[in-house]
Amino acid sequence: MGENSFGTSKTHQKSLDSVPASKEADGLKLEGIPAFNRERFLQRFNEFSRIGQDQSGAINRPFGSEAEKEARGWITAMAQEAGFTVTVDAIGNMWGGLAGQHEWPAIAIGSHHDSVPDGGRFDGPLGVLMGIEVLQSLREAGYENRHPFTFVSFTAEEPNPFELSTMGSRTISGRLSQEKLLAAKDWQGRPLADAVAEVGGNLQQVPQARKTAEDIAAFIELHIEQGRRLEKRGIPIGVVSGICGIYRELITVTGEANHAGTTEFPDRRDALLATSEMLLALEQKIGSLNNSSLAATVGRLNVVPNAMNIIPGSCSWSLELRSGDMDAVYALRDDLLPSFEAIASRRQVSISREVLLNQQPEPMHEQVISTLQTMADELEIPYAPLASMAGHDATHVASFTKAGMLFVPSIHGKSHCKEEESRMEDIERAFYVLAAAVRHLDTALAGGRKLQ
Amino acid sequence: MGENSFGTSKTHQKSLDSVPASKEADGLKLEGIPAFNRERFLQRFNEFSRIGQDQSGAINRPFGSEAEKEARGWITAMAQEAGFTVTVDAIGNMWGGLAGQHEWPAIAIGSHHDSVPDGGRFDGPLGVLMGIEVLQSLREAGYENRHPFTFVSFTAEEPNPFELSTMGSRTISGRLSQEKLLAAKDWQGRPLADAVAEVGGNLQQVPQARKTAEDIAAFIELHIEQGRRLEKRGIPIGVVSGICGIYRELITVTGEANHAGTTEFPDRRDALLATSEMLLALEQKIGSLNNSSLAATVGRLNVVPNAMNIIPGSCSWSLELRSGDMDAVYALRDDLLPSFEAIASRRQVSISREVLLNQQPEPMHEQVISTLQTMADELEIPYAPLASMAGHDATHVASFTKAGMLFVPSIHGKSHCKEEESRMEDIERAFYVLAAAVRHLDTALAGGRKLQ
Repeated sequence: MGENSFGTSKTHQKSLDSVPASKEADGLKLEGIPAFNRERFLQRFNEFSRIGQDQSGAINRPFGSEAEKEARGWITAMAQEAGFTVTVDAIGNMWGGLAGQHEWPAIAIGSHHDSVPDGGRFDGPLGVLMGIEVLQSLREAGYENRHPFTFVSFTAEEPNPFELSTMGSRTISGRLSQEKLLAAKDWQGRPLADAVAEVGGNLQQVPQARKTAEDIAAFIELHIEQGRRLEKRGIPIGVVSGICGIYRELITVTGEANHAGTTEFPDRRDALLATSEMLLALEQKIGSLNNSSLAATVGRLNVVPNAMNIIPGSCSWSLELRSGDMDAVYALRDDLLPSFEAIASRRQVSISREVLLNQQPEPMHEQVISTLQTMADELEIPYAPLASMAGHDATHVASFTKAGMLFVPSIHGKSHCKEEESRMEDIERAFYVLAAAVRHLDTALAGGRKLQ
Repeated sequence: MGENSFGTSKTHQKSLDSVPASKEADGLKLEGIPAFNRERFLQRFNEFSRIGQDQSGAINRPFGSEAEKEARGWITAMAQEAGFTVTVDAIGNMWGGLAGQHEWPAIAIGSHHDSVPDGGRFDGPLGVLMGIEVLQSLREAGYENRHPFTFVSFTAEEPNPFELSTMGSRTISGRLSQEKLLAAKDWQGRPLADAVAEVGGNLQQVPQARKTAEDIAAFIELHIEQGRRLEKRGIPIGVVSGICGIYRELITVTGEANHAGTTEFPDRRDALLATSEMLLALEQKIGSLNNSSLAATVGRLNVVPNAMNIIPGSCSWSLELRSGDMDAVYALRDDLLPSFEAIASRRQVSISREVLLNQQPEPMHEQVISTLQTMADELEIPYAPLASMAGHDATHVASFTKAGMLFVPSIHGKSHCKEEESRMEDIERAFYVLAAAVRHLDTALAGGRKLQ
């Protein structure tokens, strides 16, 4: 394995030959911007990727797991080696970085270190490790920052047994109440407070973890795109205009459990067959809408009692709808309901619905967007403005300060799976844009006041 | 609650007014047949029903659970109170009863004490408690049995975490090898050997648990019908002609896990949507066959990774087909396969199939059938001959000795659910048929030789 490739047997380095010509990596230097230490970054990234990785290459590092705790220990040790001290706030977010010449609000870069079940190596850690890399490189280059420069790794961005995703960023934004956090338990009844305490947090001190623009002047999250828009267009960098809204319901279809041998077909009220028909109705509706910025997914489904010789008595499943336009989401939901009801009525089953999430779209901050675009232009790196169809920690940080996001292409658009991958060349370009943007904001923001 | 009703708030005692007139319970006496001790039986049945019962009334007593162990302790103590000593064989089956005047093969009655998840009170325990009741009543009436009279409660008749149903009866019939038992583990990797040891068995001694016609001359299992055929016809007793075959496959549909927001609909290979279409194709096929003695069920389905924001990467589900005619089962299976393959091909997912069970139909023994019918005739109790669409321990016992089964009606045909119920009057009739049949066989079999 070459030192310039990620530690996987499958490399897709040749798959993006159509990327428009840009400055070679070695030429991507603006005055005062340090060179990207590719070897160091790769070594750290590959080392980190082994935490929670199974034989198949999939990552299992959900919040509260042993692997997630190991990841925290690794980040703390690596940051220390890089010259930074990590502190943990009340919800378990990890913070570190460089003091500034002034006691101004910080300029922060980061993402999260947890993963979905059977996830990939890039979703989250790329932004965390790059945050540390940018700060370390700027310090090594002798850059004297006026604002404090901070990296952050947020707690529990992904779904987890406590049913609270983007937990860390929602908590510091005041979007997740201490009361709700204290009431949260996992599927086995274990309190969230215990899991948070185990990683150095303390739910009793949640109010003190609240951040405002007085604490953070700007935040940039580097992330993989997780879709194919950049790849299809052959663009190496995406500057995110805003983050889609996410609407989730838990739908429970209740029929009647009965013996699989002795219950004749006309007498059955099979909750799984009713659900199957609803899922296909949803699929058909989505197909007819032909709206690529409206996504609908049933990702979780549980049958009760789930035994081979018992007719399914109930079936609970998640309906997730995403769009930058919530009117489109609500219209689809309202359109689906009568067809679900009709199926239920015909099959003599009942439906109950519970709204789990109704998260509005969040625009990124204009000044951060324009800074990222200007820096890409100066570096002669092609970029595309685009909306994110995935939720991110930046969604919530944007509620209290100037936030922005940078995307690198996902090879074949794959994400939340072990095949998740991005190209080193694109990541290197992101480093330069990020470092330049942080430096630019350090001047432009001038203590929270906009200079120009 | 009256002493003559089962301990549930819902009684359906009035629902079978159409049962043809027969002798009243108090008149159901043949010479030498003791009266049914209804109060004693009810008290025991209601007490036993509380073991593993949750707030809703559902029973959770799968093999290996704490409730199942508690059930064993209760049976042992109750049998002792009734004057019987319980012994446990190598696979954990519980045996007890009366020595005979001769050292002949035993005449046995029994069933099982475990339950399906969220099951009912009657499936299994009815036959176990009635076996003890019949033997205790015959002894109290001074009956001097020539054959040993034995009751039995079999281990793990229902599906369980070790994926081996009818475990106890298959083991004593030599239909489940010691090798397979020793290799069995539950979903958490716990060896079956440990679970069997905990209930007093010992997998090392499995060969000694093997029974033949030298050990058991005849076996009768009393069970609930679990269907609606007796109820629909208003018949209080079913004499089982044979037990249907059961064919089970585990089908795994593999697509591609991917991000639920960023993966556009045309790029998805959703294993759950493909499965939904297959399930509806199966339903349509069954509907078109209109064969009430052919049952098809998908009772278990698991999605991987089963997260709200990930497109299902794979979906594993059980396909269970039942019939007294295995040609009909295989024809249906072979008919379904091309439609499943076509769906998979169109959706760019793959299918893998694993046969879990291919259990052939088992006829009950002619002599036991005719004895049960003759006794019902003498008692003037209407009965219907019928095939069982459910598998039972008697299926396997029939492979080595003369086996038969008696059914009582299930109210509304409900079974494997908390609403499972049967009427006391029917159960009382079953007691008299059983007691008379055991007494008759004690004479007719004469040490294993047929007298008439």
